[in-house]
Amino acid sequence: MQTLIQDKRLTSQLDFLIEIDKLKSIQRRAPLINGSRVENSAEHSWHLAMMALILSQYANEEVNVDRVVRLLLVHDIIEIDAGDTFAFDVTGYLDKAEREQVAAARLFGLLPDDQAAEFRALWDEFEARSTAESRFANAMDRLMPLFHNYLNGGGVWVTNGVSIDQVRRRMAPIADGSTELANVVEAILTRAIERGYFEQAPAARQ
Amino acid sequence: MQTLIQDKRLTSQLDFLIEIDKLKSIQRRAPLINGSRVENSAEHSWHLAMMALILSQYANEEVNVDRVVRLLLVHDIIEIDAGDTFAFDVTGYLDKAEREQVAAARLFGLLPDDQAAEFRALWDEFEARSTAESRFANAMDRLMPLFHNYLNGGGVWVTNGVSIDQVRRRMAPIADGSTELANVVEAILTRAIERGYFEQAPAARQ
Repeated sequence: MQTLIQDKRLTSQLDFLIEIDKLKSIQRRAPLINGSRVENSAEHSWHLAMMALILSQYANEEVNVDRVVRLLLVHDIIEIDAGDTFAFDVTGYLDKAEREQVAAARLFGLLPDDQAAEFRALWDEFEARSTAESRFANAMDRLMPLFHNYLNGGGVWVTNGVSIDQVRRRMAPIADGSTELANVVEAILTRAIERGYFEQAPAARQ
Repeated sequence: MQTLIQDKRLTSQLDFLIEIDKLKSIQRRAPLINGSRVENSAEHSWHLAMMALILSQYANEEVNVDRVVRLLLVHDIIEIDAGDTFAFDVTGYLDKAEREQVAAARLFGLLPDDQAAEFRALWDEFEARSTAESRFANAMDRLMPLFHNYLNGGGVWVTNGVSIDQVRRRMAPIADGSTELANVVEAILTRAIERGYFEQAPAARQ
């Protein structure tokens, strides 16, 4: 935009906004709820922001829901460079933190300095789960894929041979954000087990 | 979810959140900035919310940016039933308001009464452009597609033979939200004209 617009600050802001359009091309593993295709990280971020607005009453601690929304809008932007790491991919997690740090520096660094710091701080807060808002935001991020997989005949749990123990470990932090929503997780997982979504261990699926 | 969860309020909330996943399957006309496919309304809503957070300093009036974000997260949900009406589709606009009213009643009506009223009010506010927040939110909604089309060789302006007058009418309300961003629109449109994106009138394209 720099050949069109004189203002340097506005140019940086527009360049960032154009760059993050790429989040719409980052594919996640979970299918849409209607099963028609896999989800991308931009639409997923929108869905989580809506979820936070609707479910904030169930947060264990008082939360500023608008800050939860901001954390969720920003939380996946680093995937434009770092890619989406599948929640049950042990190898991918080995260098996930390093890849994401480099991505955060480049992507938020496109913004003017004050906003680069502001949006980087939102991402750091989400990752650290050190505040009531980030604990609730993380609960949203872990809870939503449960619906996508449960409502798709087990989804990636079945296609990737994920075990019930792996799913329970992934879902455990939801209780830090909301005890009530952690109970929903248990109700869904109990039914998912009854339906046989976790019957085959990964080794048995080779 | 009602066979799984006893709480009626929580069941309604989860049913709404599962229903709005369908917004990810509502296709808009404009291409992604990388031109790989057309955009959907869920990822578009995420992008506008980010845009509001980044550009709020340019609002003509003081705005509560978190409310602008809420307006934008909610503004297209009615398209799940009413469909996306192309901004330059004269026929589609004839019954747009009626279709959208019916959609709003059903979709927000899935929520518990208090939240149904709260989210319906956000959509009404966005549509009415009666507040500083809704004027700025509308500016975001009109400005972003300009980048998508401009950066795709004219995009839908070219493929649908849209005239410069039609685009200027569509963009005019941006000035109510932000004079500075209206100037960006003019700079881009001037360059778009130079590039010949509006050379052919619709009649000439038959």
